Amino acid sequence: MAKKRNIIVGQSGGPTAVINSSLAGVYKNAKERGFHKVYGMLHGIQGLLDEQYVDLSTQIHSDMDIELLKRTPSAFLGSCRYKLPEIHENPEIYEKIFSILDKLEIEAFVYIGGNDSMDTIKKLSDYAIIKGHSQKFLGVPKTIDNDLALTDHTPGFGSAAKYIAASTKEVIRDALGLNYKKENIIILEIMGRNAGWLTGATALARTEECEGPDLIYLPEIVFDVDKFLKKVQELMKKKSSIVIAVSEGLKLADGRYVCELSAANADYVDAFGHKQLAGTATYLANFLGAKIGCKTRAIEFSTLQRSASHMASRTDVDEAFMVGGAAVKAADEGDSGKMVVIDRVADDPYMSAAGIYDVHRIANNEKVVPREWVNKEGNYVTEEFIDYVKPLIQGDYQPFMVNGLPQHLVLKRK
Amino acid sequence: MAKKRNIIVGQSGGPTAVINSSLAGVYKNAKERGFHKVYGMLHGIQGLLDEQYVDLSTQIHSDMDIELLKRTPSAFLGSCRYKLPEIHENPEIYEKIFSILDKLEIEAFVYIGGNDSMDTIKKLSDYAIIKGHSQKFLGVPKTIDNDLALTDHTPGFGSAAKYIAASTKEVIRDALGLNYKKENIIILEIMGRNAGWLTGATALARTEECEGPDLIYLPEIVFDVDKFLKKVQELMKKKSSIVIAVSEGLKLADGRYVCELSAANADYVDAFGHKQLAGTATYLANFLGAKIGCKTRAIEFSTLQRSASHMASRTDVDEAFMVGGAAVKAADEGDSGKMVVIDRVADDPYMSAAGIYDVHRIANNEKVVPREWVNKEGNYVTEEFIDYVKPLIQGDYQPFMVNGLPQHLVLKRK
Repeated sequence: MAKKRNIIVGQSGGPTAVINSSLAGVYKNAKERGFHKVYGMLHGIQGLLDEQYVDLSTQIHSDMDIELLKRTPSAFLGSCRYKLPEIHENPEIYEKIFSILDKLEIEAFVYIGGNDSMDTIKKLSDYAIIKGHSQKFLGVPKTIDNDLALTDHTPGFGSAAKYIAASTKEVIRDALGLNYKKENIIILEIMGRNAGWLTGATALARTEECEGPDLIYLPEIVFDVDKFLKKVQELMKKKSSIVIAVSEGLKLADGRYVCELSAANADYVDAFGHKQLAGTATYLANFLGAKIGCKTRAIEFSTLQRSASHMASRTDVDEAFMVGGAAVKAADEGDSGKMVVIDRVADDPYMSAAGIYDVHRIANNEKVVPREWVNKEGNYVTEEFIDYVKPLIQGDYQPFMVNGLPQHLVLKRK
Repeated sequence: MAKKRNIIVGQSGGPTAVINSSLAGVYKNAKERGFHKVYGMLHGIQGLLDEQYVDLSTQIHSDMDIELLKRTPSAFLGSCRYKLPEIHENPEIYEKIFSILDKLEIEAFVYIGGNDSMDTIKKLSDYAIIKGHSQKFLGVPKTIDNDLALTDHTPGFGSAAKYIAASTKEVIRDALGLNYKKENIIILEIMGRNAGWLTGATALARTEECEGPDLIYLPEIVFDVDKFLKKVQELMKKKSSIVIAVSEGLKLADGRYVCELSAANADYVDAFGHKQLAGTATYLANFLGAKIGCKTRAIEFSTLQRSASHMASRTDVDEAFMVGGAAVKAADEGDSGKMVVIDRVADDPYMSAAGIYDVHRIANNEKVVPREWVNKEGNYVTEEFIDYVKPLIQGDYQPFMVNGLPQHLVLKRK
């Protein structure tokens, strides 16, 4: 009897609104290419090490389920933040993973994630080559932060940008409608530790009927509290309602995060050693309130910006689906140790296609906003930035509304 | 020459996602009933005192504009928080208002707002009767808080409830997809100083594929920090991801707000003497983090919950439009000193109709969630509560998407 052709897929890192669209793309393409079983790791490689997985045919029963999965935010299979040790540090873990893959007769391993996940693909494909295992390892990009190198942009970014821009428009409208002859300042805090792609996306709220935010501060540019205060005071001479977008990761010249200026924020570090940030907008709102004496409000879009499937971009959902399928195609054609990327084929009309890159060229390089896409003063993005993002927020997938709320596809455990 | 029949409309108080649908209803019905000019006060009665108003026919040019207005959040005309003095305290203000109304040949005055706005309608209609003025004064209810008496519910509540329930579902999905074998607690902070209608609406996230929040704390029930901690610790024995909804207005047995326990919150009082609240969820998240030692996150829906027209309820938009029109009808038929209310005609299938009440019976009575609609422990709402809210979040108005974002109708100043 011929060896079965099975495939396994996992999700890792922070969720996005479209990470499940990539999962749907993997599933559908694998079935179309004649893969026998499509397994899903529960909570990524960390769950796999505990032999936690499902046969996805027990979860997805119809094309309708696939459409529902495309409209479901967060990791359907569960995510993890787990960094594989170097091979020489702990070969036992690698042996365990490959024994599970052998047992499940896995031919292809697809991992949907960000920088840290591509590191996992690199290590597993290296190990397979060293030890002569036949499995193929493919990475599918995913992150709202858009900080992966070599791909024009990452799936998840467009939908987060769309949600942020739409919500910024609504917040600005709300602020303008408010009080008469009263000044108010709103500070929006947007996710992004080191890359300001999402914070910059607030500029898309500048449309024919909306001025957009007044100031935008990205983490790529050193933040100067005094200059900031002066700029705001200057603006308040001209208008009474001011909206400012700041990245959670704003840093001072001495390297400290702005939020560290607030004593209330305790130190907290995640499994990858990243500082857990909170309170940049709150700190700055309190600061301006005290200095200027007007009403201020901090608004954090928090996890909503990565989970608002109801405001997903059609371009993003479709591209996420495409790169999922392209990873299966690549594995089926014998590729390994590669990440699928999105190539921008044309700007106007916008066209994109999936490409393939060696994962060794990708892992752990953070792509930040280029300095020339930020204005000279360092407090707004340029037209080039806006032209780059705009195609990525176009179109929508209407949620499937059930009893007045968006319906999701949810993992059924036996 | 016969006296012109003009009408003036204003918006007051905190904005909602559908306050402009009421404005559209006023405009459309006034035009259909043959009113000559429809004026809009800019920033309500406060702007009117400065003779700030527009002729709405310079703003609304087509049925398409009316549809766009229905999909535009926040007060199109601008809002205010301005409490009229008692008549005997400052008759000059009343004389000024009526001289402006006379000059504009106003026959009907429609004010869209909450408790404080109905007080304005009461005082102006009282003054008109005392002084023999012929103008009619009608109130149109509006508040996300749903705290107006005599009306089954208020326009604005259903859309805020829908946005909150949908966002709660997405936040819960995000939290469940996250880390493996790690505990996390999310605390959602919802608007509502004294009435817990919106906080309770998080329970609507409990659907066939979502457990909904685990605990819900309304401001109507005295909050006990020790009991809360004990309850959370109990729950954490059963599940690793917990979502708790709290009202911004949670109060302790001694009458202090929970957020006052955090030293970071300065005292701040608005024009009506209401305390400005912030930080209930942040305080409780820090508290649980310290006591339990797991990861916690506070999420405030902030002004998004009252401005998210893109997630408005069709029932709510339509009812807001209906009560706007019904106010014009009432004025046209000679009513004054009345507020339009929504009567629930039937539950299943849900049907509603506009009714009329004397505004003296309404003003300044806050309607809170009845004790019997909260469970015995005081940490969740009952099925009766859910059955009451559910019809109000049904259906949607798709936003008009332009360049990937919801389009709004915006006031054009000359």
